[in-house]
Amino acid sequence: MRLLTFEKAGRPALGIARGERVIDLGALDPDTPADWAAVFAEGGLERLRGLAANVPEEQTVPRDGLHLLPPIPAPPKILCVGLNYMAHAQETGSRLPTDPIFFTRFPSTLVGDGEAMVCPRASEQFDYEGELVAVIGREGRHIPKERALEHVVGYSIFNDGSLRDFQKKGRQWTLGKNFDATGGFGPEIVTSDELPAAASGLSIQTRLNGEVVQDGRTDDLIFDIPTLIATASEVMTLQPGTIIVTGTPPGVGMAREPQLWMKAGDVVSVTIEGIGTLSNPIIDEHVAG
Amino acid sequence: MRLLTFEKAGRPALGIARGERVIDLGALDPDTPADWAAVFAEGGLERLRGLAANVPEEQTVPRDGLHLLPPIPAPPKILCVGLNYMAHAQETGSRLPTDPIFFTRFPSTLVGDGEAMVCPRASEQFDYEGELVAVIGREGRHIPKERALEHVVGYSIFNDGSLRDFQKKGRQWTLGKNFDATGGFGPEIVTSDELPAAASGLSIQTRLNGEVVQDGRTDDLIFDIPTLIATASEVMTLQPGTIIVTGTPPGVGMAREPQLWMKAGDVVSVTIEGIGTLSNPIIDEHVAG
Repeated sequence: MRLLTFEKAGRPALGIARGERVIDLGALDPDTPADWAAVFAEGGLERLRGLAANVPEEQTVPRDGLHLLPPIPAPPKILCVGLNYMAHAQETGSRLPTDPIFFTRFPSTLVGDGEAMVCPRASEQFDYEGELVAVIGREGRHIPKERALEHVVGYSIFNDGSLRDFQKKGRQWTLGKNFDATGGFGPEIVTSDELPAAASGLSIQTRLNGEVVQDGRTDDLIFDIPTLIATASEVMTLQPGTIIVTGTPPGVGMAREPQLWMKAGDVVSVTIEGIGTLSNPIIDEHVAG
Repeated sequence: MRLLTFEKAGRPALGIARGERVIDLGALDPDTPADWAAVFAEGGLERLRGLAANVPEEQTVPRDGLHLLPPIPAPPKILCVGLNYMAHAQETGSRLPTDPIFFTRFPSTLVGDGEAMVCPRASEQFDYEGELVAVIGREGRHIPKERALEHVVGYSIFNDGSLRDFQKKGRQWTLGKNFDATGGFGPEIVTSDELPAAASGLSIQTRLNGEVVQDGRTDDLIFDIPTLIATASEVMTLQPGTIIVTGTPPGVGMAREPQLWMKAGDVVSVTIEGIGTLSNPIIDEHVAG
């Protein structure tokens, strides 16, 4: 099942994608929550699957006209992982991590598929990072590795847009990773039953203006998804809707010679085999207003 | 005005403290939001001030019996600042920062005044950090220093409970600062009009079981509150209800010889002159269940 969130009358609404059409769940049942995190928390996903199963084509809407939002616009936690592909850790000149490196983003950084990622006034060093996202569907703390995947409802795609000068300022990466509207997330959440376990073994590619700039495989993670979930949940409760952004493969703009930064007019896309393509135009902050 | 949030029939409710009594705003007007962040966003603080002004004593409730929650249980952003008192940076053996060091906490770390701070199973290195909080009342981005204080609705107190071994693991401080129920916040927000500008020049003391373990002054910040707001808002929108936790003075347990950790049965309190005292018992995670 492919879960998406779109704008309807200025508010978020839930949909299930079916090819080029979308089932508008709120139109079928006005009691549908406006947030997938709430659906997961209520254990309501199977009910919506049933509701969607028998919808005739004429009750669906064309996907083309929809304004997509991040599949979860305000996750209770956005946990990102740094330096989690060996070749990326090496290209940055960093020591290989011996424990997962977690940093966080605020929901104000998120944009959906097709929405603009905003290059801020304050920096020109706007770098792309294509990443696989694991979406938590079932709450847990102290989740053992061997049960971790039972807590994952599905997978999605992220572009962890990073301002490299700000990432280095102040030692912690918080500022460089938290400019408004710099994190692409979407287009949808693909439920776990449609993908290999842990979404492993999939090709992940980032393209800048059509040219492949990152090309990796999701089985090259240094710390796999069960390890990330076990490590994080030793510390904190992972609520439904929490997203774990698992790290980026090599090829980032910072590590190139010459360095390559995203700028207004560019289009950046991240494709993960079996999940889809997240695509975002880049605009300058003053255009965003 | 002293703004607090308390539990009423299992849900958060807003109150204004008046000495040992509390005005229950929801009892006066059932349309009162359940969250101060929403009040600030609507510009509704002055209306509530007016509503509270004429409440007779018999319509207030005794403060003693209330279960306080964090004054804002789920801030849109919790921005914390590391190494922001020179003598604390020195005691940790760190280089003095040349830019503010921001890290973040999730709302799941917060507990209110009187609620337990939980020493987790995973670590014994549970350290206290008494801190001044600036609470954003008016949304802003690119806020110049000289206008920064116009965005601060009030001030409060924080105990930035830190698990030092986890803070060092993984380079970023995320894990060590984000154990569930390790951040005391409260008891209330004191509005800016009742305090010196930027809440500067106030004594700040942390006590562990009654003994003073940190003793500083809020004018010893390396980066003052206007600088913190200007720096953060260059990067991200500060929404109403955002809290900026401004750093801790010297005396943390990690830097002592021998080191001093909080353990179950302890009581830790942080007092800031003119704001009040935040007090939390320490319990072990298994007791919390």
